[in-house]
Amino acid sequence: MSAKPHEALAKMLADDMAAVNDVIRTRMASEHAPRIPEVTAHLVEAGGKRIRPLMTLAAARLCGYEGAHHVSLAATVEFIHTATLLHDDVVDESDQRRGRPTANLLWDNQSSVLVGDYLFARAFQLMVSTGNLRVLDILSNAAATIAEGEVLQLTVARNISTSEETYLKVVRGKTAALFSAATEVGGVIAGAEEDVVRGLFDYGDALGIAFQMADDLLDWQGDAGAIGKNVGDDFREGKLTLPIIKAIAKGGAADRDFWARTIGKGKVEDGDLEHAHALLTRHGALAETRQAALDWSAKARMALEVAPEHALTSELQDLADYVVARLN
Amino acid sequence: MSAKPHEALAKMLADDMAAVNDVIRTRMASEHAPRIPEVTAHLVEAGGKRIRPLMTLAAARLCGYEGAHHVSLAATVEFIHTATLLHDDVVDESDQRRGRPTANLLWDNQSSVLVGDYLFARAFQLMVSTGNLRVLDILSNAAATIAEGEVLQLTVARNISTSEETYLKVVRGKTAALFSAATEVGGVIAGAEEDVVRGLFDYGDALGIAFQMADDLLDWQGDAGAIGKNVGDDFREGKLTLPIIKAIAKGGAADRDFWARTIGKGKVEDGDLEHAHALLTRHGALAETRQAALDWSAKARMALEVAPEHALTSELQDLADYVVARLN
Repeated sequence: MSAKPHEALAKMLADDMAAVNDVIRTRMASEHAPRIPEVTAHLVEAGGKRIRPLMTLAAARLCGYEGAHHVSLAATVEFIHTATLLHDDVVDESDQRRGRPTANLLWDNQSSVLVGDYLFARAFQLMVSTGNLRVLDILSNAAATIAEGEVLQLTVARNISTSEETYLKVVRGKTAALFSAATEVGGVIAGAEEDVVRGLFDYGDALGIAFQMADDLLDWQGDAGAIGKNVGDDFREGKLTLPIIKAIAKGGAADRDFWARTIGKGKVEDGDLEHAHALLTRHGALAETRQAALDWSAKARMALEVAPEHALTSELQDLADYVVARLN
Repeated sequence: MSAKPHEALAKMLADDMAAVNDVIRTRMASEHAPRIPEVTAHLVEAGGKRIRPLMTLAAARLCGYEGAHHVSLAATVEFIHTATLLHDDVVDESDQRRGRPTANLLWDNQSSVLVGDYLFARAFQLMVSTGNLRVLDILSNAAATIAEGEVLQLTVARNISTSEETYLKVVRGKTAALFSAATEVGGVIAGAEEDVVRGLFDYGDALGIAFQMADDLLDWQGDAGAIGKNVGDDFREGKLTLPIIKAIAKGGAADRDFWARTIGKGKVEDGDLEHAHALLTRHGALAETRQAALDWSAKARMALEVAPEHALTSELQDLADYVVARLN
């Protein structure tokens, strides 16, 4: 890999992506309520990598799609993602995202909830415009899975008995479901063979899981500039990341008291971060999580073996390597 | 009218409504996140009149529909309504609805936001299951109009320069859009003639507007038991109801200072409610609003003249009278 894979994808799909940005700009407008484009622009123009719409465009094109619906679907996926971010920031009471103040801070929670609802509705309008019922089925199921994963995450928050199985359900909901739907609908709209559609789904699913596990690990090794968060941020917020779930499962009663206080009750004191890191290392939790992330990344690459040979296929496969390449 | 029209509709459509309730119960379930059915049940079982699903069922049946998709559509409409209520209570920071504590009070804002999102997604899954693209178009447009109306309402809140035109846009969004979509999709799924479909849309639109104007008026004459709110609740909450918008337009500078303090700044003192009522009466604002509500109710009745003669058509027309019959 020379260029970063998402940058290579953006370059190869530059015309399509320009069309997607046009649709986003047009559709986020509101004749009656100017608050809507203000709030949306704050997020849409915050300079995210647009990884999800790129995945939809790439999937459609590598399957030989020549129509125009992939642009609507890519915009749909980005709108669903943006709506989710708006609601997440309300739910998490966040004041920063990508190093900028969140919409709920700049405006208010009310605007974030309602503009999020508007973007969900816009997403559904856009997908309906494709007239493809299978695509509608996939994306409406993904929306339900995302919301279900978010509620599940809320209800197990700070519960230190959370299993790896539950962790995976949450991750599939909050991260992988939109990735897998993004690539799957690209294949479906292109009329790809069933095994290719399945491969595209599996790719997005595995990529999403690898991505989240890598994100969990970066909380213990990342540098703030590169990932937009500081070491231990997740820990201090009491997030049950995979390394911690693994360490809890392997630790004894004394460890359990420590996790119950820090994660369970959110009482983090000086020296706790270092102690947590020592426990994670002692129980091999970081190494195991790293291996799990690498395995899911490899699954993602493998899943695309059934897809047509294409420069875009290779870039998507490289993207699977890239999401875990940052791990020590 | 002997029985109340919505009770007559519920009786005539008892079998269909039982099927709708089954779908709602099944679809609000969540294997992974038990919080979802808990929160949903709190609202769904709160004993609302289920007026919107009844409208969809009635519209389909009076057009001679014999299939099963009207049940899915009626459940869709109720899910969209329930999702909207959950988000509204967060936005309004409400602690009571229909005389019971709201979900955001019993659980938390996070649950209300995310369970609302889940119900929106479930609604879209249900409508997709009908396989009818026109129905999908109508309902996704309605969802966007609802959200846009809510954002507009938020941005003009406490702005005493709000025009009647803006008021109507807000009401079409927050109330009428789902009523008109509910009846329109009933006609569409039944394959009704275009003029009948248009009549069903106009009926729901006019009924929704009449309903909201009547609700505005009841703030000045209702008895708490009948409508679940006390006289002057809207005024004390600074809501720009139609009588107040009319009175502001007709009042002088001194009146304007009064409205700027009470509605604009929310500073309501002893005697203000009585003074507001006197201003509304002096400027004929209550009488004018009453007349407007009656006009929209008459429009709703008229709109159904194109629909097939049917006991359900008559009950829907009586419903249009009923929503304004409570007005002195």
